[in-house]
Amino acid sequence: MNVVYLSGGVGGARLLEGLARAVPVASLTAIVNVGDDFNHWGLRICPDLDTVLYTLAGLSDPQRGWGLRKETFRTLAAVQRFGGDDWFRLGDTDLATHLMRTEWLARGETLTAVTSRLARALGVPVAVLPMSDGQFETHIETVEDGTLSFQDWLVRRAALPAVARVLFRGDAAASAEVVRALDQADLIVIGPSNPYVSIDPILALPGVREGLSGKRVVAVSPIVAGRAIKGPLPGMIEALAHRPPSAGAVAAHYGELLGGFVVEDGDEVTVQVVPCLATRTVMKTRQDRLLLARTVLSFAERMCC
Amino acid sequence: MNVVYLSGGVGGARLLEGLARAVPVASLTAIVNVGDDFNHWGLRICPDLDTVLYTLAGLSDPQRGWGLRKETFRTLAAVQRFGGDDWFRLGDTDLATHLMRTEWLARGETLTAVTSRLARALGVPVAVLPMSDGQFETHIETVEDGTLSFQDWLVRRAALPAVARVLFRGDAAASAEVVRALDQADLIVIGPSNPYVSIDPILALPGVREGLSGKRVVAVSPIVAGRAIKGPLPGMIEALAHRPPSAGAVAAHYGELLGGFVVEDGDEVTVQVVPCLATRTVMKTRQDRLLLARTVLSFAERMCC
Repeated sequence: MNVVYLSGGVGGARLLEGLARAVPVASLTAIVNVGDDFNHWGLRICPDLDTVLYTLAGLSDPQRGWGLRKETFRTLAAVQRFGGDDWFRLGDTDLATHLMRTEWLARGETLTAVTSRLARALGVPVAVLPMSDGQFETHIETVEDGTLSFQDWLVRRAALPAVARVLFRGDAAASAEVVRALDQADLIVIGPSNPYVSIDPILALPGVREGLSGKRVVAVSPIVAGRAIKGPLPGMIEALAHRPPSAGAVAAHYGELLGGFVVEDGDEVTVQVVPCLATRTVMKTRQDRLLLARTVLSFAERMCC
Repeated sequence: MNVVYLSGGVGGARLLEGLARAVPVASLTAIVNVGDDFNHWGLRICPDLDTVLYTLAGLSDPQRGWGLRKETFRTLAAVQRFGGDDWFRLGDTDLATHLMRTEWLARGETLTAVTSRLARALGVPVAVLPMSDGQFETHIETVEDGTLSFQDWLVRRAALPAVARVLFRGDAAASAEVVRALDQADLIVIGPSNPYVSIDPILALPGVREGLSGKRVVAVSPIVAGRAIKGPLPGMIEALAHRPPSAGAVAAHYGELLGGFVVEDGDEVTVQVVPCLATRTVMKTRQDRLLLARTVLSFAERMCC
């Protein structure tokens, strides 16, 4: 059974790491949001791709939720001395990823090829695909502070400016590798990522929704008891869906796309319409990731019958 | 008295640091070789400019002769993991210099302006000018290994391929700041740098030799008792001047440009023609630098009488 997994950053990466141990790696493909990608210190930064790669490689910092464990920030300290931007904290080891990616892209390699090289070097056995090799930028139209690029809003402004709308800019198409993976997929799992800014960018690419139609699609709720494990999703649900944050609001956002929805125990009362499985979705340990992955897979298998 | 100092890397930087304490800083301008500059990891690296800035800031590593003291190499280790180039060892703190420079250059700032920003941030009070904002590359035509870019020959190949010729490529002109500094100079001091690959690039710029004519020019020998403190100069003298390495060979190379020449005690026997001062030129301590600077200045003052 070929499984395609749609992912943003931290939460999405954790379940993916569980899936990578629950299924044969050759049958698993991750399609990762690149709408958050941006240039910083002249380097190309792909936050979600890096979080996915580092998490799959077992290198991500478990506390911070981003970047590498045992990271140091000596370059950052020196950049601060030069008055350079320090709102996005690039670590010394992490920097190598961005340096190599930027250099390889400058030589004309696609982001897909670059990501594959990075994954190989990090010992990641799962196929990790950027959703596109094209131009795609997520912007946040705020109520009072104009339109901000995503990292500017999320990190520099600490997600404080009230959100009016999420905008996607660019003319990106899904890569050939993404189209092929979707075509061959028996099951699509949407990770517990932010639907507005992590999953919608993937779904917005021409052909992706068509590629999902007729497939089994299961999502895992990123909202647990009205809150997000990490990130600005609760406020975005209030601002964009005009309702209190809940797992049900996420299910409603995905709508008919979903064939099934996995939520935290107790959150099933917020969900209408889709077949819903209530279980423990919060992943604190590696074992939690594996158990949730297995639960999602067996739920999906039952769906088809 | 306005002093203009022509400099390569390590040796040149050390005497410059002494001069910066021997004269009012406002009267001292350093013109630095950029023929060694190159791109590495997608970043613009200016080895001589950085050595000069770090030495003047008191930050350079006294043992290694390049880079920063107390440097770490975490990014380099991660780059190695990705199979990236590791023959040029960029340190974590040093990296910030190259990141900022590359970003500022990409925004359209001149290397002169960028260097001035870096100098200010590092607390360097002396005017440090790259010799040019234009395109200028030193290449080494080797006897058996073709033509190599300078860092490729010096660092990657450890200066082992025999030298047939030094080539300068590009259409660079001296910057307006360099032309002005030379015009206002009362004394030109050529540091104890490699004449072929550190000083000749500066002299090769259109207008620089004319700017020096009629000025007092004093050089300090980079050869001490037939050897160089650092670098490949002895072999280059043998290959390019077809004579044993000596202070006299350096004086002969500069020829009529020199109004005076400062050599290590004992080396005066190798020097013909120019007025020559023999003294202790090896700079092991900061005090050595100051003493040599004062000796050079008083020698130059006597020359004019």
